[in-house]
Amino acid sequence: MGKNIKNLLIKKITEKKAVVGIVGVGYVGESLGRAIAEAGFTTHGFEADEARIRLLKDSLPVNFTLHCDKKLLNNCDIVCVCVPTPLTKENLPNTSILEAAVDEVRQQLKKGQLIIIESSVAPGTTRNIILPILNKGGLRVGCDFFLAFSPERVDPGNSNYSVRNIPKVVGGIEDNSQRLGVVFYGSVVEKVVPVESCEAAELTKVLENVFRLINISLINEIADYARALNINIWEVINAAASKPFGFLAHYPGPGAGGYCIPVLPIYLLDSAKKNNISLPLVELATLSNRKQPEKIANMALTIMNGKLHKSTNGNGIKPQALLVGISYKENLGDTRESVALKIWNKLEEGGVEVHYHDPYVLRLNGFTSSDLNEEFLKKMDMIIVTTPHRNISYETLIASKKPLLDTRGVLNNYTGANIYHI
Amino acid sequence: MGKNIKNLLIKKITEKKAVVGIVGVGYVGESLGRAIAEAGFTTHGFEADEARIRLLKDSLPVNFTLHCDKKLLNNCDIVCVCVPTPLTKENLPNTSILEAAVDEVRQQLKKGQLIIIESSVAPGTTRNIILPILNKGGLRVGCDFFLAFSPERVDPGNSNYSVRNIPKVVGGIEDNSQRLGVVFYGSVVEKVVPVESCEAAELTKVLENVFRLINISLINEIADYARALNINIWEVINAAASKPFGFLAHYPGPGAGGYCIPVLPIYLLDSAKKNNISLPLVELATLSNRKQPEKIANMALTIMNGKLHKSTNGNGIKPQALLVGISYKENLGDTRESVALKIWNKLEEGGVEVHYHDPYVLRLNGFTSSDLNEEFLKKMDMIIVTTPHRNISYETLIASKKPLLDTRGVLNNYTGANIYHI
Repeated sequence: MGKNIKNLLIKKITEKKAVVGIVGVGYVGESLGRAIAEAGFTTHGFEADEARIRLLKDSLPVNFTLHCDKKLLNNCDIVCVCVPTPLTKENLPNTSILEAAVDEVRQQLKKGQLIIIESSVAPGTTRNIILPILNKGGLRVGCDFFLAFSPERVDPGNSNYSVRNIPKVVGGIEDNSQRLGVVFYGSVVEKVVPVESCEAAELTKVLENVFRLINISLINEIADYARALNINIWEVINAAASKPFGFLAHYPGPGAGGYCIPVLPIYLLDSAKKNNISLPLVELATLSNRKQPEKIANMALTIMNGKLHKSTNGNGIKPQALLVGISYKENLGDTRESVALKIWNKLEEGGVEVHYHDPYVLRLNGFTSSDLNEEFLKKMDMIIVTTPHRNISYETLIASKKPLLDTRGVLNNYTGANIYHI
Repeated sequence: MGKNIKNLLIKKITEKKAVVGIVGVGYVGESLGRAIAEAGFTTHGFEADEARIRLLKDSLPVNFTLHCDKKLLNNCDIVCVCVPTPLTKENLPNTSILEAAVDEVRQQLKKGQLIIIESSVAPGTTRNIILPILNKGGLRVGCDFFLAFSPERVDPGNSNYSVRNIPKVVGGIEDNSQRLGVVFYGSVVEKVVPVESCEAAELTKVLENVFRLINISLINEIADYARALNINIWEVINAAASKPFGFLAHYPGPGAGGYCIPVLPIYLLDSAKKNNISLPLVELATLSNRKQPEKIANMALTIMNGKLHKSTNGNGIKPQALLVGISYKENLGDTRESVALKIWNKLEEGGVEVHYHDPYVLRLNGFTSSDLNEEFLKKMDMIIVTTPHRNISYETLIASKKPLLDTRGVLNNYTGANIYHI
């Protein structure tokens, strides 16, 4: 019975007649949906945010349509869940959006459907949290319906790699589910990497991000040492990167932001704690990354304190700081878990009035991106480059002669009494 | 004056008439000396260990001769110091061999010589320890003689990369020294990477090794988590390695050994401490790596304890364990800082009698490598694969049906009640 249902779906996939639903059309869902539609499948995107639908809909392939209503899920043979898995205010895993999305999928669950989770989660989540929700309907997994986990690996802004040419790791809750996931993604992307369980696929994504976090934290630590000894860390990293094996360059900065690198290690730590396992290195890297924006803010405050008595101190006007680049990553407008915002908070706590400039984020929390004109820059006491966007006139910042703290190495070729490198 | 001396040496290098001395002809000195001799320079190797000289001398290029006596140093235009920089018994940097070697160089120091330090050291060592020794003779650096630092990057056993095709990082104590170092290595290796100071070159090597240590420690930590959750960590690592950017695979094991990866982070920590800088991640990685052999030994003891009451317990005979591979790295006979020896100690402390098999280390500390025959294996209570040498009959080990702990992933394709994977 399960075998017939499975074979029917394989046939539909092979003939490109399977209808695919994407739940959550954020950056991940959009990229994945495009790739699936371009591979020839009728694709429905389900997105609660109507503004997001209006923004996207005219730019999508004709066979990729967006819907607010989830009813069409029932028409889908394959459903990919791509909703975010953020942190709570207490810095703990927040799978409530994922669980709610899966519950909506469950309401439309029908025989023969393959459900694939793409959201980043702690190992065991698909089996212990997702499957029980789907089981409520009474259908049997591996027989009536199928469940797989395949971590998203989209690297926003990376022009060399897209969904199509990034190998796709796929694990199933049992063998039929794995097989179906492998067949489906095999018809969408260039290479599929099957693994023996959902847990292995979940941990793959976690490992990739923990690797990044620990190496970013390490290089920030080594950068502190290099700064104290007056050694140019950027030159050292580039020299080390000339080694043709056993090294991968990471660069210092204000800390890792975004919704993967600082988030997944916390999912892992939470899971480890629940299993009574201690992960001291991951814990320390998380802590170190959390402290990094504060360290940068303190560097800026120290620089300002050295200068301020000449200008604003004592006249009741707060010192003025400008953050250049407020999104979490260069050339993008995404501000989730952006460390620039954490530096902003720390500066405000230090009594500083903060402004920002970001060509990708024109408005944020009631503030608007400031123009980098001479008159405006004249009012600033400090400029901090927080995100290294391409199309920013760094020359204008330098010409202002204001104290300028570069946290991203974009001004490495400039020296001057007013330029501070981390 | 300094300029003339420098130009004369450049001319000698360009015409391959410069005579080169290598102080310390261990693995690094041998590899470097061969490359220099093969580039056409008359090369003298200075080595205190006469047995080492006898072992090597017939295999070297005709223009690479070995000497016990250091007098010929005075004939050399360029002297590369390649002596080891190990740890003291208290696990602290031990630069005494390096300092003694440099003092011998100082005794023969003459105008126009270029001294290059290849030994791995903490940043600042060339300037603050080496230079003062060389200065004792009264010659002026950058003018009468020259001093550069160029870290060795030899990867023993790596058949793809040798001295010639591994880019060579070079920093000078001042500009003339850097220039000479760059010109010299430019005539020996395919690519030279100049950096602006000896300190930058010193830190490059440290960074490369700290990167390795922290990533090995991280994966050992994640492997503990995966083991507890019954996830195959090797499959996860290979899946993560399919990501074409932002990841570099490291594998779990009994801890990093050898004279670079576990050693240089300790040099760095010592330097950081003296400069009042805290490097918590490096410190924790060092600690984690130091604990790893104990963890493996404890795993072995636990496995043995589960079995022993049936065989040896209570009859006064100690449980017998066999370590397979005793050198620090596969397919080599080097046992420096080998974690297998640390596992050995821990097992002995646990009341176990230890044997070893290693085709590359036939004798060690009064023990001899045991033959892997049926009769011998029958006496063992436990077998631990500690170093994954190529030419070992793992089939014979498996056929013995003895409890078998694989710390290196060489038996990943085997399952069985007696096979334990880390």
